[in-house]
Amino acid sequence: MTVKEEISLRTVTAAAERIQGHAHKTAVLTSTTLSSLFGRDPSTNAPRTLLFKCENFQRVGAFKFRGAFNAVSRLCQETPELAAKGIVTHSSGNHGQAVALAAKLNGIPAYVVMPSSAPQVKKDAVKGYGATVVECVPTLQAREDTAAKVINETGATFIHPYNHPDVISGQGTLALEFLKQAEELGHPLDALIVPVGGGGMLSGCITAAKAINPNIRIFAAEPLGANDCAQSFQSKTFVPSVAPKSIADGLLTSLGSLTWPIIRDNVEDVRTVTEDNIIKATRLIWERMKIIVEPSAAVPAAVALFDEEFKSLDGLNNVGIVFSGGNVDMEKLPWLRS
Amino acid sequence: MTVKEEISLRTVTAAAERIQGHAHKTAVLTSTTLSSLFGRDPSTNAPRTLLFKCENFQRVGAFKFRGAFNAVSRLCQETPELAAKGIVTHSSGNHGQAVALAAKLNGIPAYVVMPSSAPQVKKDAVKGYGATVVECVPTLQAREDTAAKVINETGATFIHPYNHPDVISGQGTLALEFLKQAEELGHPLDALIVPVGGGGMLSGCITAAKAINPNIRIFAAEPLGANDCAQSFQSKTFVPSVAPKSIADGLLTSLGSLTWPIIRDNVEDVRTVTEDNIIKATRLIWERMKIIVEPSAAVPAAVALFDEEFKSLDGLNNVGIVFSGGNVDMEKLPWLRS
Repeated sequence: MTVKEEISLRTVTAAAERIQGHAHKTAVLTSTTLSSLFGRDPSTNAPRTLLFKCENFQRVGAFKFRGAFNAVSRLCQETPELAAKGIVTHSSGNHGQAVALAAKLNGIPAYVVMPSSAPQVKKDAVKGYGATVVECVPTLQAREDTAAKVINETGATFIHPYNHPDVISGQGTLALEFLKQAEELGHPLDALIVPVGGGGMLSGCITAAKAINPNIRIFAAEPLGANDCAQSFQSKTFVPSVAPKSIADGLLTSLGSLTWPIIRDNVEDVRTVTEDNIIKATRLIWERMKIIVEPSAAVPAAVALFDEEFKSLDGLNNVGIVFSGGNVDMEKLPWLRS
Repeated sequence: MTVKEEISLRTVTAAAERIQGHAHKTAVLTSTTLSSLFGRDPSTNAPRTLLFKCENFQRVGAFKFRGAFNAVSRLCQETPELAAKGIVTHSSGNHGQAVALAAKLNGIPAYVVMPSSAPQVKKDAVKGYGATVVECVPTLQAREDTAAKVINETGATFIHPYNHPDVISGQGTLALEFLKQAEELGHPLDALIVPVGGGGMLSGCITAAKAINPNIRIFAAEPLGANDCAQSFQSKTFVPSVAPKSIADGLLTSLGSLTWPIIRDNVEDVRTVTEDNIIKATRLIWERMKIIVEPSAAVPAAVALFDEEFKSLDGLNNVGIVFSGGNVDMEKLPWLRS
């Protein structure tokens, strides 16, 4: 018998306790310019405010640290002998670094499977946190086979980047903080816009936010070139991500079996944005807010700034936007790519 | 008889009241990575903390708004008929935008003299705040002549970018905030490192900081390629800036008659940094702190990170660094210039 793992406000709150003192409580910023581009409420003409949760300021530069630390830390608390054998994941992105740092802070080994084609700087970052990089050929099959081989040899525990209850609960902690911070700033959130790739952050944020405020409206934001979540939502049937293409490279994956039902049952809509608008939003955030976000993080801002259908909705006086991360190759800026 | 204008804690506090609700109270950030690069205290081996005052988040993207708003606002309060004739300045940089916005918020006209060679984007920014751009040929003489002509024709009041008591007092407000914020964060400042160009911000910060804490140590930071302040400080005689050359384009001007004596009598040292280290510091701040600072703003950080003589000083457990601004041409990043 398989016991279905709980994902609830209780598990998110437990995650918040686990990560406290290890993850940063990231800032919430506002911007007069961006809020005025979002515009006024179409029916009341009241000014509206955008609030930005800056997970680009999180450790390893992305929200991924929350879920990874929660999963690793729980493993160490509940099954220390197993945890001592280490953890393994496959990722060439932020999750790999997050797992590496979480393992280091918990004093256990980490193995990160990465395609041999991954940039040296990313391999070095993972190694810099003391993890072992295990290279494989750059196919999903090879990644999974290599991870399985590592598990077989070491007894290490696999930490999925998003389809894992502790990872989802960990990501949900950002929504716990965000709702409270917005309240303290005098702008209690009417809605949240969250980027969606595998859906770990989105389903975690839904779990926390809807438990605190059942009336909060949740929108997912996705690149048009990787619109599997929008397709799934419209058809109410899981559609995998096939040959996605977007500069928002954190949002290319398929939804997971744990994340998709939570998303299906709770989001008001999945909004898609063009590549041009992702790049425009990224640059606008850099130039006006003076902070660095990666293109994946600019996707929900692109909805608020450029999606006329979204902007025409009533009742969105205080809208929370999650800036998911800020890891950008400083040699290749989005608007300077040839 | 010329009455010497007062520059004191009293005038800085009055400035703070004037700008409240108009200027942002900017964030103070810390960075584990940058603090650890600064290293431990050489005699006690205690860890040290760098604190960063983020004036890159200020309106118009630089501290300049504080001084400009204070000067314009005082003019409007004390001599409204004169103020109604407008204000004039010459600047192709942040001061021009700051004066333009300050005038707009106070409802008076502004004339900004700019060299015809200034980038269109800078002219557009000044016009965007409703100011009149008056073009001239790109020499200092032409700028001054053109400003004089505008004054003659309009009766507008000239607001010098730094050698002006109200501008200096306005910039000093950032130090008032910074000392308090550092205290609240549990890291009361032992020292401040402030970039120096004309010296408006430095002399304002000295005035406020030394009045609050006479023991605070103040260091000026300057590009080696524009080291007139270091030369002046060593010889205790004003040395003008002649043919300066640095990517830190906010720090190329000569000291002023009001700023130089305050600097001479109060700074512990003037530290210079190389172009390579300015660029290295700028990139490190972008990559690790995920915020955008202009090269001029990275100059004091370059002292804390790369100046071995400075790093070997005792007693610098909590060091405050002013990030003066964040206005960067996103098409030409410092490390991508050919």
